[in-house]
Amino acid sequence: MDSNNYLESNKDRFLEELFELLRIPSISADTAYESDVVKTAELVKTSLEKAGAENVELCQTEGYPIVYGEKIIDPNLPTVLVYGHYDVQPPDPIELWTTEPFDPQIRTTEIHPKGAIFARGACDDKGQMFMHVKAFEVMLATDSLPCNVKFMIEGEEEVGSENLDQFLIDNKEKLKADVVLVSDTGIISNDIPSITVGLRGLSYVEVEVTGPNRDLHSGLYGGGVPNPINILCEMVAGLKDENQHITVEGFYDKVVELSNDEREAMAKAPFSKEEFKKSIDISDVEGEEGYSVPERLSIRPTLDLNGIWGGYIGEGAKTVIASKANAKISMRLVPDQEPEEITRLFQEHFEKIAPNSVKVKVTPHHGGDPAVTPIDHPAYRAASKAMETTFGKTPVPFRGGGSIPIVAAFEKILGLKTVLMGFGLDSDAIHSPDEHYGVFNYFKGIETIPHFYKNYEEMMRS
Amino acid sequence: MDSNNYLESNKDRFLEELFELLRIPSISADTAYESDVVKTAELVKTSLEKAGAENVELCQTEGYPIVYGEKIIDPNLPTVLVYGHYDVQPPDPIELWTTEPFDPQIRTTEIHPKGAIFARGACDDKGQMFMHVKAFEVMLATDSLPCNVKFMIEGEEEVGSENLDQFLIDNKEKLKADVVLVSDTGIISNDIPSITVGLRGLSYVEVEVTGPNRDLHSGLYGGGVPNPINILCEMVAGLKDENQHITVEGFYDKVVELSNDEREAMAKAPFSKEEFKKSIDISDVEGEEGYSVPERLSIRPTLDLNGIWGGYIGEGAKTVIASKANAKISMRLVPDQEPEEITRLFQEHFEKIAPNSVKVKVTPHHGGDPAVTPIDHPAYRAASKAMETTFGKTPVPFRGGGSIPIVAAFEKILGLKTVLMGFGLDSDAIHSPDEHYGVFNYFKGIETIPHFYKNYEEMMRS
Repeated sequence: MDSNNYLESNKDRFLEELFELLRIPSISADTAYESDVVKTAELVKTSLEKAGAENVELCQTEGYPIVYGEKIIDPNLPTVLVYGHYDVQPPDPIELWTTEPFDPQIRTTEIHPKGAIFARGACDDKGQMFMHVKAFEVMLATDSLPCNVKFMIEGEEEVGSENLDQFLIDNKEKLKADVVLVSDTGIISNDIPSITVGLRGLSYVEVEVTGPNRDLHSGLYGGGVPNPINILCEMVAGLKDENQHITVEGFYDKVVELSNDEREAMAKAPFSKEEFKKSIDISDVEGEEGYSVPERLSIRPTLDLNGIWGGYIGEGAKTVIASKANAKISMRLVPDQEPEEITRLFQEHFEKIAPNSVKVKVTPHHGGDPAVTPIDHPAYRAASKAMETTFGKTPVPFRGGGSIPIVAAFEKILGLKTVLMGFGLDSDAIHSPDEHYGVFNYFKGIETIPHFYKNYEEMMRS
Repeated sequence: MDSNNYLESNKDRFLEELFELLRIPSISADTAYESDVVKTAELVKTSLEKAGAENVELCQTEGYPIVYGEKIIDPNLPTVLVYGHYDVQPPDPIELWTTEPFDPQIRTTEIHPKGAIFARGACDDKGQMFMHVKAFEVMLATDSLPCNVKFMIEGEEEVGSENLDQFLIDNKEKLKADVVLVSDTGIISNDIPSITVGLRGLSYVEVEVTGPNRDLHSGLYGGGVPNPINILCEMVAGLKDENQHITVEGFYDKVVELSNDEREAMAKAPFSKEEFKKSIDISDVEGEEGYSVPERLSIRPTLDLNGIWGGYIGEGAKTVIASKANAKISMRLVPDQEPEEITRLFQEHFEKIAPNSVKVKVTPHHGGDPAVTPIDHPAYRAASKAMETTFGKTPVPFRGGGSIPIVAAFEKILGLKTVLMGFGLDSDAIHSPDEHYGVFNYFKGIETIPHFYKNYEEMMRS
């Protein structure tokens, strides 16, 4: 039986097994779900064992365990290190989900006429990670695994992979490989395959502005005391100038400007501003003066509020001046910005611009370095050829806006390049209500991955 | 038995009866407490009946009932219309209460060495309203009620008294009186009695800024789409200039500027900026350039955010660009600003300053007119003399910052002036966690009110 036949005759089971994984709410950001996150790790372990991996184990860390497994068929053959994550984002705002986030359902959409799996984690990253487990099963079952493979599936990607660096440092020998393969990104569309060659880094902070030591009546105190919500808004507004340029001192110092040639090459990738606007129902785009939308989304750093809260947010009217106001702020970074440095610059700037009347606290969350993959790397070429075979089109090399902080860590600590061969779509609503993943994309991934292994082994041999 | 003896021998019961009222969470802003609000109305009705009022009834409105009761001893004598409210503010943030908000407890504080009653509504306004019920009982029991009295206790003050105007219009004959007496304000301190002669009006709106039609991943979309939280912050920041002057067009057009003489008279009221700062633990005050703190708190209009929310506000980090951001905004108004007009000006301004990339919705909540009570009115003089008798000091006429919107309605609809003889303190934390009301103040109110009736009847006779 060849691999395509095997996949074809096991599709229902491959879906059902993914559903099982999606049913566990492995929300790493919320400690209330601790046992579910661990349960998910255990299910990933069992899945790898059933697929045929060896030495499968839950590697304990200071946080959630990393699932490791391997299949070494010949030490002289190249080794692919597969990375993925089994944790997911919180499902909030939960009331906007059409069906329950942890009760996977298949529905068709305009973009997914063959159906899509609706569930938190369907695309990011349980669905994409599980493609690798199933592709591995396919190769073993059809006796077509051409090289060695190691799996490293973590449970803290959505909270900054805080314990992964130490794990990499402690396990250099065990993780020895020739390249890292990750499916946690997307393609431009199901007709236009693409491979992500650049990723933005991340600096994420939480800020707190404190005015009076308790909530006050806005009638008695209004006009005479610092209102922390008003002040937070003023401080946030001051973080960008009228050209949407970020005002944090030193923020752009290390940004690598692309050459005109590189910008022209980028401009050739298909992009319709009208379709982009329509897809998210906005009447106008917004962003840094002097850059196109695709540039703003990939080669330029950003500063976005991800959350804000303070005062009375219930039903009706409460005339209160809050004691505190808070916000979560993330900055996407580009080469050669360093997350620790940017976090420090932000903190200094934010403290500097605070009026005397309030106290300000900046708490760093996780960060991540920006990264770029060279398109002449054998693994990139292997992935490109694999997609060409299964999609019938050469994939476009693409610089994405998201962050997979660990890609930089693989290079720094393990000395390995990473290939980001993802199969999601921008419209899959990852991190949003109604996250989904095309059934087409799930199976296309399982179909494509064995070609990557074959191509890669051949390229490394020649 | 004279009234003081009667009060003295019934203090424990008067406290226990108030506690009973405080135990019902009559939160009018939250529909989840609907039956509790109604239960409270019924208890007020029973209390009035027990105290000796006649024709007591729950008057149905489109919202919560208004409790009415009366005692007409002689149609030729003057009639005092007592107004109060039995609804309370939500207790949020509930985790900051030392003891449960609806389980009244007496504790001493630095300012209240004789103890204070800690509970939501203790001061605003159950405790102050109930003083009138008990003072009425005292006068009837000691056969010393010198004039007619009508009670009108409503249940929607904290949500804007939306059905009161209609009730006044429909019941002009029933509510016929010579003056309105209200205890829903404060005194400067227990050593410095004062009577509120001016109140600020109120315009309260809720705003919503919508960017993309769904929450987006901040990595994929960050930098290229309108972020409604950032934009809301920028719009809010633009509502005041660098002198904290409100930029809404036409906002100050009708503000009556005080004369220098009036401002000098105001400046004579005792105020320590250092003590003010210390009392709420702020390192600096804030407010409109060119005005003192007491002026900012009373004779100047304000614009304060009372709540803000948007995006991810849970634990940890979620890299999301929210679809919507919301805020609750209140403006305190001074004579002759009109709430409807200010709300309209705000709405027009807010829509005008919104960038094209977002949609903006402004929803008006309740409003209220500013009001001023003349100090040469017989009822003011009666109240002043009553406080002089019980405090041993002439009370200071004081312009307050809060709003009791219905004071303007009493004048407009019923043609009646209002005397604001309140006994709370600024430090009583009304609308905040640990709201409380001094035991001293509660009994001082019950002691003072009969003097008001006596003085008022005498002044109206002469």
